[in-house]
Amino acid sequence: MESGLKNKKVYETVIDQIKDMIISGELKKGDRLPPERDLVDTLNVSRTSIREALRALQIIGLVECRQGGGNFIRESFEDNLIEPLSLMFVLQNSRNLELIELRKSIEVQMAALAADKVTDTELGELEGIIKKMKKNPSEAESVRLDADFHYLIARASGNKLMESILRAVSSLMDTFIKETREELLVNPENDEKLVETHEDIAVALRSHDSSKAADAMERHLDFVAKNIRH
Amino acid sequence: MESGLKNKKVYETVIDQIKDMIISGELKKGDRLPPERDLVDTLNVSRTSIREALRALQIIGLVECRQGGGNFIRESFEDNLIEPLSLMFVLQNSRNLELIELRKSIEVQMAALAADKVTDTELGELEGIIKKMKKNPSEAESVRLDADFHYLIARASGNKLMESILRAVSSLMDTFIKETREELLVNPENDEKLVETHEDIAVALRSHDSSKAADAMERHLDFVAKNIRH
Repeated sequence: MESGLKNKKVYETVIDQIKDMIISGELKKGDRLPPERDLVDTLNVSRTSIREALRALQIIGLVECRQGGGNFIRESFEDNLIEPLSLMFVLQNSRNLELIELRKSIEVQMAALAADKVTDTELGELEGIIKKMKKNPSEAESVRLDADFHYLIARASGNKLMESILRAVSSLMDTFIKETREELLVNPENDEKLVETHEDIAVALRSHDSSKAADAMERHLDFVAKNIRH
Repeated sequence: MESGLKNKKVYETVIDQIKDMIISGELKKGDRLPPERDLVDTLNVSRTSIREALRALQIIGLVECRQGGGNFIRESFEDNLIEPLSLMFVLQNSRNLELIELRKSIEVQMAALAADKVTDTELGELEGIIKKMKKNPSEAESVRLDADFHYLIARASGNKLMESILRAVSSLMDTFIKETREELLVNPENDEKLVETHEDIAVALRSHDSSKAADAMERHLDFVAKNIRH
């Protein structure tokens, strides 16, 4: 960027320092950051700049401020406040087609990984979701169950990076699921078919068969893709 | 979160407002945000809170501040300053195995998409990179060429969302490429093999054959995966 406030450089330095401390392993999950006063002395910048940097790190969900206890590297990153990727996607005027392409690439692979790693508890949860899907839930609950089903497989895959990416686009995912269900359910037969393709995934995971799980996920997402407007 | 500064709620409101304006389409790429003073009046919060929110949005790369000209929604999101995903990955103690799983899922699909959409100019660029790879470049240049090759295919895929995700983990990607090359090149034969598997991808893209391109990318990444420590 060629322009910007002069002050920008200052808080950037602060962020870079904290970033470096994370990459070098000096700061780990749950660790407390040095007190603001120490950062002021060490980095030789104003307290305002330190605070701006910390605030930004809090907003992106990397740092949390505990009442009276200073700033800590977060233990968990599941609830990212801003979801920059979702917003950028909206701003890029991307279409549902791009999201389904992303979901196909990530979720098919995650289903295969999950077939290896899924626990009995997780299988029980997945089967519980299928059971609820079959009990004619309200549309709002159906949307919630659908999303829960996919996030649960993401967790079961054991790949935190891929899970984080799915969660980073979760507001897109949720809107996508809501909208595509509306389009699909114009044809009432699709409701049953949708539960069925979810169930196929759960069955494949229960048998711990990676290629069957990947195929089932691919068929499910292809079914969704075929029935929506792009 | 159960704790936090009281002030947090205030800047969160500001961010939520801006987020809503983006999702509703009221604010688009390149649009100017309302002046700070107007935001103070409309949202009835302090100027400090407005500034904190704007600063955080600048840091995550969503908003840019132009000298004397106010705050604008960025036109392009390629250079995300913090790359929260990369840092979170480091903090999660994730391993290279997770990154290769992610790369396999996303890049194989992107290669297939790129086979359809790649332009002659992009093909020329890819072939230019292969030519340079064959000319015994320095290790630092080899790393750069390798990364450029993969980002170029991401661009050619036409899926901005998937490209953004690859770029969001770019500092991981770059470190990964650097480290895996070091491990691979302990065996000097692998250097040639690495160029060869890249070339197979370029050839498949030139023939616009999606399944050949996906296979070539998969073989390339499997070759890398097989030869590294997890």
